Amino acid sequence: MSGVGAGERAARMTLTGVVEPGHPVVLAEVARHGAESVLARLRSGEHELSASLASRLAHFDLDRERALAARVGGRYVVPGDDEWPAALADLADAPVLHQRGGVPIGLWVRGRTGLAEALRSAVAIVGSRSCTVYGSDIAAEMAAEVTDAGFTVVSGAAFGVDQAAHRGCLARAGTTAAVLACGIDRVYPLAHRALIERIGQDGLLVSEAALGAAPTKIRFLARNRLIAAMSAGTVVVEAALRSGALNTASWAEGISRVVMGVPGSVFSGPSAGVHELIRTRGALLVTRAAEVLEAVAPMGQWTLPIRREPTRTRDLLTDEQRQVLDAVPATRPAGLASIAQVAGLTPTTVVAALDVLVRADLVAAGAVGWHLRRASSS
Amino acid sequence: MSGVGAGERAARMTLTGVVEPGHPVVLAEVARHGAESVLARLRSGEHELSASLASRLAHFDLDRERALAARVGGRYVVPGDDEWPAALADLADAPVLHQRGGVPIGLWVRGRTGLAEALRSAVAIVGSRSCTVYGSDIAAEMAAEVTDAGFTVVSGAAFGVDQAAHRGCLARAGTTAAVLACGIDRVYPLAHRALIERIGQDGLLVSEAALGAAPTKIRFLARNRLIAAMSAGTVVVEAALRSGALNTASWAEGISRVVMGVPGSVFSGPSAGVHELIRTRGALLVTRAAEVLEAVAPMGQWTLPIRREPTRTRDLLTDEQRQVLDAVPATRPAGLASIAQVAGLTPTTVVAALDVLVRADLVAAGAVGWHLRRASSS
Repeated sequence: MSGVGAGERAARMTLTGVVEPGHPVVLAEVARHGAESVLARLRSGEHELSASLASRLAHFDLDRERALAARVGGRYVVPGDDEWPAALADLADAPVLHQRGGVPIGLWVRGRTGLAEALRSAVAIVGSRSCTVYGSDIAAEMAAEVTDAGFTVVSGAAFGVDQAAHRGCLARAGTTAAVLACGIDRVYPLAHRALIERIGQDGLLVSEAALGAAPTKIRFLARNRLIAAMSAGTVVVEAALRSGALNTASWAEGISRVVMGVPGSVFSGPSAGVHELIRTRGALLVTRAAEVLEAVAPMGQWTLPIRREPTRTRDLLTDEQRQVLDAVPATRPAGLASIAQVAGLTPTTVVAALDVLVRADLVAAGAVGWHLRRASSS
Repeated sequence: MSGVGAGERAARMTLTGVVEPGHPVVLAEVARHGAESVLARLRSGEHELSASLASRLAHFDLDRERALAARVGGRYVVPGDDEWPAALADLADAPVLHQRGGVPIGLWVRGRTGLAEALRSAVAIVGSRSCTVYGSDIAAEMAAEVTDAGFTVVSGAAFGVDQAAHRGCLARAGTTAAVLACGIDRVYPLAHRALIERIGQDGLLVSEAALGAAPTKIRFLARNRLIAAMSAGTVVVEAALRSGALNTASWAEGISRVVMGVPGSVFSGPSAGVHELIRTRGALLVTRAAEVLEAVAPMGQWTLPIRREPTRTRDLLTDEQRQVLDAVPATRPAGLASIAQVAGLTPTTVVAALDVLVRADLVAAGAVGWHLRRASSS
């Protein structure tokens, strides 16, 4: 299953247990030198964090951690494992945001599906916890439709947009991944106990934090980078100006994922952050799942025609035909000379145009001249 | 007032009377050779349009045209006149759209204000004739606010967004210019008689079409390029997928004016065209007048800070202070060692952070330890 040795795996699990998620220095060291070496330096007192983490290290118990994970059916996944999502490597070179960053040391995972497999085609749908019905409707519908197209829906299990996205995906029997800021054995928010349990069964619960870890502010900030990195693109459905969803969007930007935003009323607070994202940060405006798919699917796999209304007969008219049509009276028939003068065209041109217009059923020809057919007003 | 001779002026007025607005070939010829030369060729039968326009030319009467204009207080303005808007020169090199294009031969104008003066700072606000209340509210409010900032509001006197924009400007005693597809002595739509008369008095009515000309489809298409060219930028408030407002936006694009769109519900038909404009054609999303002004005003004259919520005390905390705050219990006080372990930081760091947090009124220090002050939850 993996080329990672038991010692390295245990060292990673230990570091996951004591180092804050997304600590950019430690994560970079682990990526370069391996966890065993970093852990040894931490324990020896040589590491700059040795003092800070001494107490946590003293209290950490690998067997207890494994037992806690076993109780909820959790597994620990590290780089090199088959299940490890290759896309997370993009975090290695990403800028540090809010002092968080780097490739996770390891991830705790619950759920039947393999993580890498689930994330092969994945879209993140995120947004405000205090979203409107407009926002949750769109999130649920978009999630359902990208699910139908074979995508996994990644989100954060929060109130509002997140839960609607998870539910929209589950409703279509799809795979949804909830990336948590707390341990995979905790439920946050508490009101989402049933939803989170269901995702743990039918989807995937993923966390960079140790078992039992509380969802703190910096863990949310670190978590957001995983949502962005695990998805081909991030859709922000609704976000107030200081919504955490905008932090996820910043991560997506930083690692060159597609950032998308759903527009809404200019009078709606929960759309203000999305509008700012589109306005000032170049996020792609999306109004429906097909537009999301076009943006995130491999080139050419989902392409949309530019949206237009169906072409009507009169759209196919030439400029001159149109000019003649405009010169034909609505009811009282007019003769050729009159139409030609009004149109500003020669009688020859007008006759040819009238022929087309009569055949197109736009103009009626009578004994004394031409007039418009009913319902052919522009 | 002008270096344009009486002969050239009369020739231009005649051509305005017989050539369709925005005829790209004739307009280019007039720009290059002058109207007298083009008119002479038309009359001689040498011009490719001689036959088409013979009947119109035969019926055109310069004195009658002047009399019709005098009846509504209209004046004829040509390039070289003080009142001629310099910005229209940009149409010389613009692409031809729908077989329309070019610098107008002349313009019929009604209203007290000088045209060039009125258009020195001007924004076009356009949109769907069948707009929603959302659209007309935004159009009126945006128009009022750009008026307060000293801008002229340009639009097309149509139902829906156009009329709301004109009214919003008039309500603030501003100058609004209605560019018409028909003659300046005609009222279209008829229901806007009072509005159009009012604009003719307090604002400006402008048309490239002859006196008495009916508003035909191609005249609307030609008219739209004038709305775009007369404004520093065009705001599309609401537009269905085949709205004429999108044609105006295409013109604005073609002559390097700022194209702006107001977002709305993804479920609203009249917003679909605007969303497509932002999505696929790079129009700037705008949600309020200040954003419009920032985009169209001379560089640096109107600049907006990125919209953010006000900074709160806790936003100023360092990562470590935040980590300590997250480790302080809500009610039951904890001691230094406990907080240090939960935070994963050294006691020295924790003491320094607690000091800041207590002074910031986020944490309370008691005899047995520290706990959160009320209302300091994240």
